[in-house]
Amino acid sequence: MDSPVRSRCVEVLQVKSSPPSEELITFDAQRLEEALKTQGYSSVFFPLKVLKRLPEELRKADFNVWCVLLKDENGWIVAEVSASPPKEVLGVAVDLGSTGIAFYVYDFLQSKLVKKYSILNPQVEVGEDILTRLHFARKKEKLDYINKLTIDCINKELAKFGSKNIYYVSVCGNTVMSHFFAGLPVNHIFMEPRSPVTQSYGIREAKEYGLDIHPFARTYMFPSIGPYFGGDIISGLFFSEIHRKEDGFYFFIDVGTNAEVVLGNRDFLIACSGAAGPALEGGIFECGCQAKPGAICTVKIDKEKKTLHYQTIANEKPVCICGSGVIELIAELFKAGLISNEGKLLPNFMQERFKKVEDELAFIVAFAEETLHGRDVYIKQGEIKSFLRSKGAMFTILTLLCEKVGISFEDIEKFFIAGTFGNHIKVDAAVTLGMLPKEALKKAQGLGNAAGEGALKFLLEPDLEEISSIIKNITYIELNKEPRFMEIFAGSRFIPVE
Amino acid sequence: MDSPVRSRCVEVLQVKSSPPSEELITFDAQRLEEALKTQGYSSVFFPLKVLKRLPEELRKADFNVWCVLLKDENGWIVAEVSASPPKEVLGVAVDLGSTGIAFYVYDFLQSKLVKKYSILNPQVEVGEDILTRLHFARKKEKLDYINKLTIDCINKELAKFGSKNIYYVSVCGNTVMSHFFAGLPVNHIFMEPRSPVTQSYGIREAKEYGLDIHPFARTYMFPSIGPYFGGDIISGLFFSEIHRKEDGFYFFIDVGTNAEVVLGNRDFLIACSGAAGPALEGGIFECGCQAKPGAICTVKIDKEKKTLHYQTIANEKPVCICGSGVIELIAELFKAGLISNEGKLLPNFMQERFKKVEDELAFIVAFAEETLHGRDVYIKQGEIKSFLRSKGAMFTILTLLCEKVGISFEDIEKFFIAGTFGNHIKVDAAVTLGMLPKEALKKAQGLGNAAGEGALKFLLEPDLEEISSIIKNITYIELNKEPRFMEIFAGSRFIPVE
Repeated sequence: MDSPVRSRCVEVLQVKSSPPSEELITFDAQRLEEALKTQGYSSVFFPLKVLKRLPEELRKADFNVWCVLLKDENGWIVAEVSASPPKEVLGVAVDLGSTGIAFYVYDFLQSKLVKKYSILNPQVEVGEDILTRLHFARKKEKLDYINKLTIDCINKELAKFGSKNIYYVSVCGNTVMSHFFAGLPVNHIFMEPRSPVTQSYGIREAKEYGLDIHPFARTYMFPSIGPYFGGDIISGLFFSEIHRKEDGFYFFIDVGTNAEVVLGNRDFLIACSGAAGPALEGGIFECGCQAKPGAICTVKIDKEKKTLHYQTIANEKPVCICGSGVIELIAELFKAGLISNEGKLLPNFMQERFKKVEDELAFIVAFAEETLHGRDVYIKQGEIKSFLRSKGAMFTILTLLCEKVGISFEDIEKFFIAGTFGNHIKVDAAVTLGMLPKEALKKAQGLGNAAGEGALKFLLEPDLEEISSIIKNITYIELNKEPRFMEIFAGSRFIPVE
Repeated sequence: MDSPVRSRCVEVLQVKSSPPSEELITFDAQRLEEALKTQGYSSVFFPLKVLKRLPEELRKADFNVWCVLLKDENGWIVAEVSASPPKEVLGVAVDLGSTGIAFYVYDFLQSKLVKKYSILNPQVEVGEDILTRLHFARKKEKLDYINKLTIDCINKELAKFGSKNIYYVSVCGNTVMSHFFAGLPVNHIFMEPRSPVTQSYGIREAKEYGLDIHPFARTYMFPSIGPYFGGDIISGLFFSEIHRKEDGFYFFIDVGTNAEVVLGNRDFLIACSGAAGPALEGGIFECGCQAKPGAICTVKIDKEKKTLHYQTIANEKPVCICGSGVIELIAELFKAGLISNEGKLLPNFMQERFKKVEDELAFIVAFAEETLHGRDVYIKQGEIKSFLRSKGAMFTILTLLCEKVGISFEDIEKFFIAGTFGNHIKVDAAVTLGMLPKEALKKAQGLGNAAGEGALKFLLEPDLEEISSIIKNITYIELNKEPRFMEIFAGSRFIPVE
């Protein structure tokens, strides 16, 4: 087993305290406290249940006991004291997305990530999109229902790893997801004047949230900046570390249901988010989906040979098209002359791929006979237009932030791209479409699910001060209050022509 | 209602926070937090249950809400937020004595003590004296039984005042009582090497102790110095404030089952306790009892007229003799020549008052026909000897502490006398018997139940730093390690002769 690193959320160590004697400190707990202090763990708190077992365990262990310590706001909780070493000590990072919930299971004894996976957010039962869920949750009993749905689902997943061995859970989610997780009323989040209940959640007892894990387990949830700028972005930023960069300017771009962008470095952070519309995510296209086996992720159109080739994730039979696939598809359609720079479908060739879906023109990427479910996978005219508005909003935000700071895209050191398809994004396609500036071609770097990675990072580096300095340093720009927004946006809704 | 005093354990105040607006802080909780900060309450913590009701209460109250704040180790707990003022906000100080439990019910809205009373400690069911209870509690299920007996009994009392209105409980007790209250194993308290489980308990959630009061109520229990020097003495010291005295030397003397004595001032505190034997308390004499209606508390013997007069508490028919009565009785017997300076009964006159009880000579204070129960109230030869040993131990401790500091009794500014009969003690009788030095005649001051008063004081001045500085400043002298003890004691066991 590794020697303990002081800064993790959970530390497991064997501590030799002095035995009782007439000369030394009289009390069992204080002798152990003293021993922990010499190892760097001060301000320890013993729950009564631990104190009740302490004398026996100390003597069984000849005063050399195993302790499981949990980081709290003001010190350490002694969650376990035992003569024998613990068999399993886990922490779980949870990225509570509106569509999916990602779990990262970390083993503190082996010091390694043992599992990482996603499940569907059970809240989709109530509504596919957030607005439907917000509407549903207006009444207390409905809110409680969504809260229970969420917590029950997470408890069920945690139980798979042995609930009582889980000592820490770190959670990130957007502002609405955080409210649902905590069971807080959402009525005022999107009603003017908008006002979520709380910005920060801090470190709480896991049972306060209803998490059924180790009795003294703690839960940390990332704070929010505002209704549109939640803990998932703070978590992503925390992971990206642009707030630590000493030189140059860095973009942190989270492409999800919203376009959330932060520009800055160690000295300042300026943020903006736009209801870019969920079009960038892919998931809400009629044939769209999140990245998963069978999702079309790559599309190439050969204008000369008049052919289309695609690839799917895991090379399975196609079932849908994911976000990065959509971006490339539209870029390829444009380069082949099959859409105009305004996004209008032009059936110039491959007419067999053009069809009407409920009176709307659509372009077929995979024919029914090729797909797993035996139905065409296509993109509709309206979806393309909607996508172009979204990518326009994204570009507008990037431009606006640079203008605010007084720099140009050339001054950017790195474009960190996070989000559902952060790792898969075809930067060249995004540049072709004018979603990202051409400077991104060489300077873009995918961060994957930065939010989830940030929550995992918290388990290993629970630096509350660093997170609160991020919060303090961020200046948030409200798009709808920016007169320049519409000006820039007007020119960004189209695909740029050389 | 009084304006809030910042330093109490519970504060009730109406706080005007700004309403949500586009320009100000977005979040409900943080706006309220900001408003509380301007009133001096920083580091506030909102339980989720409070956050869940916050938006509605804020808007019902037009953002001018009532808050109930509870002092915690690192700040304030927002225990209630409501549009309407709370009807009742109570705190209870509990002095957990081995014989009786004293309750002090404080009303934080009216800023006054509303009730003060005592009940029998239900642990007497298990054993009259502490040693019997320690023996009984060796096994976990028996310990749990005593713990439950104690907590159930306290819960039952608290329920009389409306459990949910009780927001704070402060507790003091000796080391064993504190362990029983917390349900901690007592096996190593009096077994060499002696080692109680914990010195400090800090501020905890009341429910951690099983107290069934307000869901976010806190409980503070005073820390101990050692097995024989518990939280009740620290609480008493805290009340006596000798640790704040700038000039001169002060004695704090607690006369109970043990003789616990502290000498010092702002600069130092030196403490000693002796298993003086419970003889000083009166309670364990065959006809002894605690101060209560019908207890003989005053005894006068007229040597010339050969008569004895007594008074009882509340002037009721006598049933027993309390501690202060015993001291005066023995002093009067000595002055009348009815006992020798070694404590031997001398039936020189009033022969009708001398009788044999199971072959042991006894002196009758009240005859059967005068008493409520129709039985004689007497003191036995052995009890007198035992008392003299106890008073000798007390005097020895006082002398020893002065020697340690290098001062004499003349240098003492004040003898604060606390304990069961702290308010009733006949100082002249105690001086006659050589229990207190003659300097005490003019300088003794009764503190009553200093332990209970100290617990009450905590509710109003929860100064954790002050208490921990008391703990740090105390040097504890172990009697049985003092070679001088037996030397001084040898001369102190007798009644001094002019």
